[in-house]
Amino acid sequence: MKQNFGKLYLLPTTISDGDWQNTIPQYVRDKSINLQHFVVEDVRTARRYLRRIGSTQDFDSMDFFILNKHTQAMDIPSFIEPCLKGNDMGLLSEAGVPCVADPGNEVVKVARRKGIQVIPMVGPSSIIMALMASGFNGQNFAFIGYLPIDKFARAKHLKQLEDRINREDQTQIFIEAPYRNQKLFDEMLSKLSPQIKLCIAREISGKNELIEVHSIQEWKKTRKPEIQKQNTIFLLYK
Amino acid sequence: MKQNFGKLYLLPTTISDGDWQNTIPQYVRDKSINLQHFVVEDVRTARRYLRRIGSTQDFDSMDFFILNKHTQAMDIPSFIEPCLKGNDMGLLSEAGVPCVADPGNEVVKVARRKGIQVIPMVGPSSIIMALMASGFNGQNFAFIGYLPIDKFARAKHLKQLEDRINREDQTQIFIEAPYRNQKLFDEMLSKLSPQIKLCIAREISGKNELIEVHSIQEWKKTRKPEIQKQNTIFLLYK
Repeated sequence: MKQNFGKLYLLPTTISDGDWQNTIPQYVRDKSINLQHFVVEDVRTARRYLRRIGSTQDFDSMDFFILNKHTQAMDIPSFIEPCLKGNDMGLLSEAGVPCVADPGNEVVKVARRKGIQVIPMVGPSSIIMALMASGFNGQNFAFIGYLPIDKFARAKHLKQLEDRINREDQTQIFIEAPYRNQKLFDEMLSKLSPQIKLCIAREISGKNELIEVHSIQEWKKTRKPEIQKQNTIFLLYK
Repeated sequence: MKQNFGKLYLLPTTISDGDWQNTIPQYVRDKSINLQHFVVEDVRTARRYLRRIGSTQDFDSMDFFILNKHTQAMDIPSFIEPCLKGNDMGLLSEAGVPCVADPGNEVVKVARRKGIQVIPMVGPSSIIMALMASGFNGQNFAFIGYLPIDKFARAKHLKQLEDRINREDQTQIFIEAPYRNQKLFDEMLSKLSPQIKLCIAREISGKNELIEVHSIQEWKKTRKPEIQKQNTIFLLYK
């Protein structure tokens, strides 16, 4: 590591409406409110979060580089210039830990190529928290992001997940665009084997937290969970 | 959820010699030092951790149920009796988050069957922190625990991981018994394709933290990382 470079801190944010003290360590909060240079997904929510955890800085004098689906790959190397000039930087996720289920790793790749030290910090990960609370196998698990949108490709993928659960004893974890949660739930009930277990984890760490586990055949008999347009993570296991 | 049951809190612990404030949220610490009933992997280290974060309780008056590889499956249901009697309980990992890369999920399964509310809390996960800092794909990844010990089975498994990386774009994460770390490293250098990238993350969040990423052919040219008998996590990606 070149000593004259700044460090890149990977800073998790809250994932719910609860107090930040519930899910963000003091040290991570202190580091977050004292940095001057950030890579963020959205400037408005990043500033709102920094105020919420106690920042009193003048945001107009600070750097906020925007990394989202509209960002051009060729622009990313310029984001880490503050580090190259000796300033510490923060990479802030929109919700939860950065570089997991978001494009933050593109910034880390560029920083690593330049020899900048990258420091991961602790905060809430809905993937890990849902896995913990599911009772499913936590010694072998996969997070696969989104399922295919196409109906036939999706049905095939669900069967492939079942195969991995049964043959490899691997818990399968995935997410969906919140407005399609209900549709995904219905498809799982119609496509998966009756004995497969489905864990639904909604609004983890928030006032509206719900974490429920049933087999597919049990889910068919219970009341539908209220997950439409709510942050939800899905886990399958045997 | 039955209102008269206690709750089961899944309580992460520190994974390094750093200050607990670096990696444990205040709320999780406060909850940990105020519970009277615990499931732990090892009583001695659990008590030492509780003292370290500020517990002043009389441990002799408290319940510590032991869950480790010697625990009989038939004994686990009795661990949650304090919850059934209306007391909150804590499930403490030996290091990091419980129920991930440890057998804690067996307690969660029993608790769920009884209708006890299970509450996951935030703390350090070396899997997630290593993934964040690697720059590897965090939108599709698998943690597979330990590789097979048998030489031929292990070589075959490494090739299977390469296949998943290339065909499914999935980051592969695994661990090894610390005294076998060096041997695993040497095997990866001899068995994996030259262009595959290997991230080695040692003692995350500690004074001795090292997180380094190189391709297999680059690792062959650099100095061997000092990982023997040290907590290390391995990640592969393209």
